[in-house]
Amino acid sequence: MKVVEGGVTAPLGFLAASIRAGLKPSGLPDLTMIVSEVPANGAGVFTTSVVRAACVDFDRAVLRSGQKIRAILCNAGQANACTGIEGAKITRESAQFLQELLKTEDGVLIASTGVIGQQIDRAKLWAGIPRVIEQLSRAGGMVAAQGIVTTDLVTKTIALETTIQGKTIRMGGMAKGSGMIHPNMATMLAFITCDAPVEAQLWQKMLSDATDRSFNQITVDGDTSTNDMLLALSNDRSGLSLITDASSPEAQTVAQMLREICIYLAKKVARDGEGATCLIEVQVGGAENDQQASRIAKTIVGSALVKSAIFGRDPNWGRIAAAAGRAGIDFNQDHLRIELGDYVLMDQGQPQAFDRAGASAYLKGQAERSGAEQLIDYPVVIKVTIGDGQGQGLAWGCDLTYDYVKINAEYTT
Amino acid sequence: MKVVEGGVTAPLGFLAASIRAGLKPSGLPDLTMIVSEVPANGAGVFTTSVVRAACVDFDRAVLRSGQKIRAILCNAGQANACTGIEGAKITRESAQFLQELLKTEDGVLIASTGVIGQQIDRAKLWAGIPRVIEQLSRAGGMVAAQGIVTTDLVTKTIALETTIQGKTIRMGGMAKGSGMIHPNMATMLAFITCDAPVEAQLWQKMLSDATDRSFNQITVDGDTSTNDMLLALSNDRSGLSLITDASSPEAQTVAQMLREICIYLAKKVARDGEGATCLIEVQVGGAENDQQASRIAKTIVGSALVKSAIFGRDPNWGRIAAAAGRAGIDFNQDHLRIELGDYVLMDQGQPQAFDRAGASAYLKGQAERSGAEQLIDYPVVIKVTIGDGQGQGLAWGCDLTYDYVKINAEYTT
Repeated sequence: MKVVEGGVTAPLGFLAASIRAGLKPSGLPDLTMIVSEVPANGAGVFTTSVVRAACVDFDRAVLRSGQKIRAILCNAGQANACTGIEGAKITRESAQFLQELLKTEDGVLIASTGVIGQQIDRAKLWAGIPRVIEQLSRAGGMVAAQGIVTTDLVTKTIALETTIQGKTIRMGGMAKGSGMIHPNMATMLAFITCDAPVEAQLWQKMLSDATDRSFNQITVDGDTSTNDMLLALSNDRSGLSLITDASSPEAQTVAQMLREICIYLAKKVARDGEGATCLIEVQVGGAENDQQASRIAKTIVGSALVKSAIFGRDPNWGRIAAAAGRAGIDFNQDHLRIELGDYVLMDQGQPQAFDRAGASAYLKGQAERSGAEQLIDYPVVIKVTIGDGQGQGLAWGCDLTYDYVKINAEYTT
Repeated sequence: MKVVEGGVTAPLGFLAASIRAGLKPSGLPDLTMIVSEVPANGAGVFTTSVVRAACVDFDRAVLRSGQKIRAILCNAGQANACTGIEGAKITRESAQFLQELLKTEDGVLIASTGVIGQQIDRAKLWAGIPRVIEQLSRAGGMVAAQGIVTTDLVTKTIALETTIQGKTIRMGGMAKGSGMIHPNMATMLAFITCDAPVEAQLWQKMLSDATDRSFNQITVDGDTSTNDMLLALSNDRSGLSLITDASSPEAQTVAQMLREICIYLAKKVARDGEGATCLIEVQVGGAENDQQASRIAKTIVGSALVKSAIFGRDPNWGRIAAAAGRAGIDFNQDHLRIELGDYVLMDQGQPQAFDRAGASAYLKGQAERSGAEQLIDYPVVIKVTIGDGQGQGLAWGCDLTYDYVKINAEYTT
């Protein structure tokens, strides 16, 4: 499996584009489309919030109907949440308009991100849809990744390639963050394309499983959004025959690709958390099962006290221990072991003598190495062992900084 | 029911003192004691964290044994959490030492707050215990309230007086915050004294009920601590006969006093949240039951995005709606109504036209009126209605500010 260029248009049969439709006050690209040249199987994971955008309900219904999917349309600038009947109407009608222009009866999916409670400017959207269709191209993946961002500092996109039964298979993905990031799909949009054909229900299952180990294990601020969604399209342009058996080697390879792409994008989203200076990876082991370990990992990485200690470059194991203890998972505190990078801070529930200056320098160094490009290869690694069970879990987040407060005190979402 | 002076020593038969035992590096008062001149009934509510201080387990065992209680000893400076066998030994032995000095076989309760993972300096503690006993007085309530604080900016204490069956009844309380404040008793200590005698199990029930409507409904940063506890002593010095029937008017009056004291102290703790500039009160109505309403209220008041918007004096109803939606309680978003002070921001799930400058000025004004004394009479009030049910709930918190990050990036807990 190797990394290739092209993002969501790396797989065969996918086109993408992004244009400036005038929906964002900034004038930046704000209308993005991904199209499959042939009908694709669609899958989706959505916010669990009761207060959710019109497009969330719309897409759920489209996917439930079992239709093939041809396109994803994403606007940035307005979330189209808390916009009532008028908001639902715009979502529905823009999907119909798109179907007419694409001359298809296959389903199209809609995504929105931006300010809650503002109606999308219908005239601008209607003018934009034909224009973004005109721009669709096999080279549009990178431009599309730029078109979906809001407060993100870097774009988040990747594509992988492998070979199955002699056929070249590609999968591409892109995502946007970067606030309201927590379990259950936070203000996060991610779109994945694949040219290996996977039967629709199996494709959905693969996507849900990958989400549980990636997007559902990141947190920036604990806030789940009204609009979160992860959509994935699978077409047959690689020439491979339809994958229907979850236990087949083909299915396992595709599932692994999907998991790797989701984890990559999730880490990029966490690293680009609002105001963050570093990526934090929490590894929990020794639990009774993976679910318990994952829950503890997520609780630690979501602790405001742990996050601000890491911003302060303070190897504060007491806050890590306290967060582990309140995750709602029972364990014996006398078995607790905490490591930060190569430093053992606690063992058998007891604080250990350690090189405090060295541990602090490790925190500072990882942030510096990660840099303005927000590389995810230099996470601050917190390793917590709670016993001798086989359960393991990972979670990712970022530090809590002055800039997080600044961004969120001054920006109306 | 009226407010009186004296804090925890306002009720008859209670003495208190606080001294500088040298446990805090700052040299401020750090060893505090409350004593009942006669055996009292004790009750307690404790952190639910798996990683908890030695004193939590010790006190639970003492209360479970059904012993009468004579004293509470509280040290600040070291939390005595993650301190293993040695930490448990210090707790146990200091209780024994205290019993010897007080010449009592009744139980004594221990509380600790401060840095996690540091052992308490045994020599300093042993030297301090006789000295704090020497200082005990009927006028010690206010000094004691000062002795239990750590990063708190103001002391938190109150006493109430009422008359039951011709007898004057008093109840006093004091608390400390101010970080790691969340459900399940966060880094929060609170001590309550009462000179109306309540049968032990009923006293515990009253305390648990009051906690659910007060301390368990505040949040500063979502972090539950290793040491949280609320202890309450009830003696018979008012001359009233023992209250044993929960439905009696006497019991109801005492329960109401207890609830009012707990709510007052909880609001003081929330207002003094690290770095906070204002108290936020979220009122949720129209739910199916009180529990659901309380959960939504707590989710809203705990949202980092809502908290930073209020610091930015931004009437950002979208974040309030999003937080309500992710609380895990099902409701129809088309019935959602959101008010901020006197401003209606949303109704029937739709954004309303409102005086944005006026709403922003309201946020600014409440913070200014609350001032450096941290008055709790000027909360920012967010009122959320989710339907037409009878369920209501309240929660309190504070805004998220640059100073929260500063305090927690630079202070080793």
